[in-house]
Amino acid sequence: MNIDQKPLAVNPNILEMEYAVRGPIPQRAAELEKQGRAIIPCHIGNPQALGQTPITYLRQVLALVEEPSKISRERQLKALFEENPYSDLREEDFISEEILALSEDILAKSVTGMGAYTASKGHFFIREAIADFINQRDGYESSTGICADPENIFLTSGASQGVKFVIDLLIAKENDGIMIPIPQYPLYSASIKKAGGVQVNYYPDEERGWIFNRQILEEAFLSAKKDKVNVKGIVVINPGNPTGAVLDEQSMIDVIEFAQEHQLMIIADEVYQENIYQGKFLSFAKVLGTGRVPLISLHSISKGFFGECGHRGGYLELRNPPKIEDSSLDFADLLNKQASVSLCSSTPGQVLTYLMVKPPTENSNSYKRYIEEKNKILDDLHEKAVMVREAFSEMDGMECFGETGALYLFPRINGLPEGTIDFDYCMALLEKTGLCTVNGSGFGQREGTHHLRIAFLPPKELLAQVLPEWIKFHNQYVSK
Amino acid sequence: MNIDQKPLAVNPNILEMEYAVRGPIPQRAAELEKQGRAIIPCHIGNPQALGQTPITYLRQVLALVEEPSKISRERQLKALFEENPYSDLREEDFISEEILALSEDILAKSVTGMGAYTASKGHFFIREAIADFINQRDGYESSTGICADPENIFLTSGASQGVKFVIDLLIAKENDGIMIPIPQYPLYSASIKKAGGVQVNYYPDEERGWIFNRQILEEAFLSAKKDKVNVKGIVVINPGNPTGAVLDEQSMIDVIEFAQEHQLMIIADEVYQENIYQGKFLSFAKVLGTGRVPLISLHSISKGFFGECGHRGGYLELRNPPKIEDSSLDFADLLNKQASVSLCSSTPGQVLTYLMVKPPTENSNSYKRYIEEKNKILDDLHEKAVMVREAFSEMDGMECFGETGALYLFPRINGLPEGTIDFDYCMALLEKTGLCTVNGSGFGQREGTHHLRIAFLPPKELLAQVLPEWIKFHNQYVSK
Repeated sequence: MNIDQKPLAVNPNILEMEYAVRGPIPQRAAELEKQGRAIIPCHIGNPQALGQTPITYLRQVLALVEEPSKISRERQLKALFEENPYSDLREEDFISEEILALSEDILAKSVTGMGAYTASKGHFFIREAIADFINQRDGYESSTGICADPENIFLTSGASQGVKFVIDLLIAKENDGIMIPIPQYPLYSASIKKAGGVQVNYYPDEERGWIFNRQILEEAFLSAKKDKVNVKGIVVINPGNPTGAVLDEQSMIDVIEFAQEHQLMIIADEVYQENIYQGKFLSFAKVLGTGRVPLISLHSISKGFFGECGHRGGYLELRNPPKIEDSSLDFADLLNKQASVSLCSSTPGQVLTYLMVKPPTENSNSYKRYIEEKNKILDDLHEKAVMVREAFSEMDGMECFGETGALYLFPRINGLPEGTIDFDYCMALLEKTGLCTVNGSGFGQREGTHHLRIAFLPPKELLAQVLPEWIKFHNQYVSK
Repeated sequence: MNIDQKPLAVNPNILEMEYAVRGPIPQRAAELEKQGRAIIPCHIGNPQALGQTPITYLRQVLALVEEPSKISRERQLKALFEENPYSDLREEDFISEEILALSEDILAKSVTGMGAYTASKGHFFIREAIADFINQRDGYESSTGICADPENIFLTSGASQGVKFVIDLLIAKENDGIMIPIPQYPLYSASIKKAGGVQVNYYPDEERGWIFNRQILEEAFLSAKKDKVNVKGIVVINPGNPTGAVLDEQSMIDVIEFAQEHQLMIIADEVYQENIYQGKFLSFAKVLGTGRVPLISLHSISKGFFGECGHRGGYLELRNPPKIEDSSLDFADLLNKQASVSLCSSTPGQVLTYLMVKPPTENSNSYKRYIEEKNKILDDLHEKAVMVREAFSEMDGMECFGETGALYLFPRINGLPEGTIDFDYCMALLEKTGLCTVNGSGFGQREGTHHLRIAFLPPKELLAQVLPEWIKFHNQYVSK
């Protein structure tokens, strides 16, 4: 029953959208790997694929809530062990009563266990814990009445799902636009494209460490207005992706005042908030304070020191939900509707998000190990970033701006040979050294500039191997 | 800093779309539950929220892959136990070597463990196992060369994600339409609405058990054509949701021939394929055979006897991927692009999908328990369906067509009082008895008919309590 199917016309937005993080260079790396080449995958923020170990606290609890019969069995085993200590097993091979009780508590609060769909926003007790975390982190002052509201918190399958919910809602017409920083994480450009809206670029000041100001924002806005684009929102990624840059408070105040004047929603992607290597994280919610600008703040279990990318967990927090034109509903209702159609986010992701916002307290049994693991990972990350930055200083014309943050560096490659672009450089770097990065054009950049994004995740030994090769490759490449 | 935000104009498609499964009646049930009323939640296919226990095999493995150190510890414990048996613990309290080895094998094949992003389509070894499962289930004949291709299999966060990928791709223009059975699972109507396309209804024959034929399909197609709708695909849900009905082979052949003639893609939602209480499941892929119609087949870990809804796992299998107009890409490439932007589906969902398609073999240690648990759940489900059907026979004017399948019954409520509709009936049923169902209008139905969907999931004792109350309520309600 053979027929000739005529070619299928498909959604042009999907045909056109791009996502360089899993684009041609990583695809080429996968091919080379199949052929037996050793590849160093620095193209994606995927820490546990590069040897980062999971946080014990998280996985102990997750394993127990997935197989609850093991909770009482553990108590039996421990009791037996106490009566009959063996040289083979030590006390630390058993799970603490604290962890056992926490797992039971989570199961009790979930009511229906790990297998059932939860409420569409996610379990209430988890959203409450997230609200507490936010309030604590930002120093909630009861006198001001500002605080996070569990009903305006949505657990999502990774922060990516939250981004799409919001962008899909904001784009009401073809000429609706959303401002995004150039360079940006291409989930934003892809989502805007898929939603049929307009991407409105604004340009953080690279040489001043990727900060921005009112003027930069107004330029972008005016330019959009001239093209008859109706700007609905502005995305800020802090710490930045791909830049890693950490925003200063003044930039944040400027965004808020700008959004207020033009009645925009702010989408604050804060998934790298634990990847700050000097100073303390300042959230948009904190800076907003009693301000009335609608604000979406995103967090995730994928980054920080957890690196639980595969478990797809995160949340979106909404402040100052706007009312909807011609409707009695507000923005939160519509986010909830979208969440309903997907039923709920993954239960392991929800539980890991809960543990992320409710780490062991100082007096607890798990604290010491948790803090050791956390510090080891963060120190290791920072040291690796320093190694890579030092290597840049030996590459002719390579410059890297901004304070180190997130999991990435986004150096500017000056002095590329005539006719070559960063894509060519990255592809050649891959072929020559096995190091897989992503070309700057995949994230957007000022015309005429070239960059690449490298995730500083591989083990130090591997970096120590490949960095000298990169230096050699670079200096040869730019001298052509 | 108070400002008056003007109301926000949002995506009208999201404003308009509906999803009754988490609509007004379940929302009212949640309110009543908060007030202390006892609610029997039969509005959603969420088995483990109603007491169905997880399959031991699945959770044993999942817990181990989440906390791999427990694998070697288990061996240590077993060795110690063998030397020193205790009356408190028995051999069956320990995990079999088989399960330990399987967990190690999964971790080894995953390479990067549970915390890392996987390939966007999902782990290759899992897609291979799914292909094997499909080929075995459908009796792959090597002479014909028909078989499932792991590269055309996509692991998704629940089947819902796969549905959206496909519908979002197919709807290229405003007048593109997709045929859906009335009644349907409202993910389809919501997804088509959100994608900005046209929902084209076709009407299975209720009184003949919800089967359909070429005429029924052509009627719908012609009606769409008259409205200048360009039909791109047809959804079939088998076993049905909400009807539970199981399609006969002729209906399936008719769909395939119809799709072939009009060059449509078939979307076969087969997530309830394990919920068949008499006879054997016949897949669309099997009936298609060497046919060249593009076919999407969907499966999920949420239903069957697994009920792992919260873990969000499933897959989409594509056969005969069409070429794309004005592009060198094919449909699989574009599904892959969408999957890339979401990075990957949840790793627990992927592992549970693997275990679903690779159950214990007959000679294995886990087999006996697995089969006992499976049969207990399926027998229990069927007995409950019978109880509910018997109750229908005592309700004046209640009729229920089609063979029992899936997890639902969709009875037709004849003789409602003048001016009342199924929504009113279901709301009153909820208020009176605490039984939460979903009104037929939430799924679509022939004009002038009234139905409701009930998931026959609660424990028998609970059903035994509420069914007589329902009978009483019903007979009073229709006699007004």
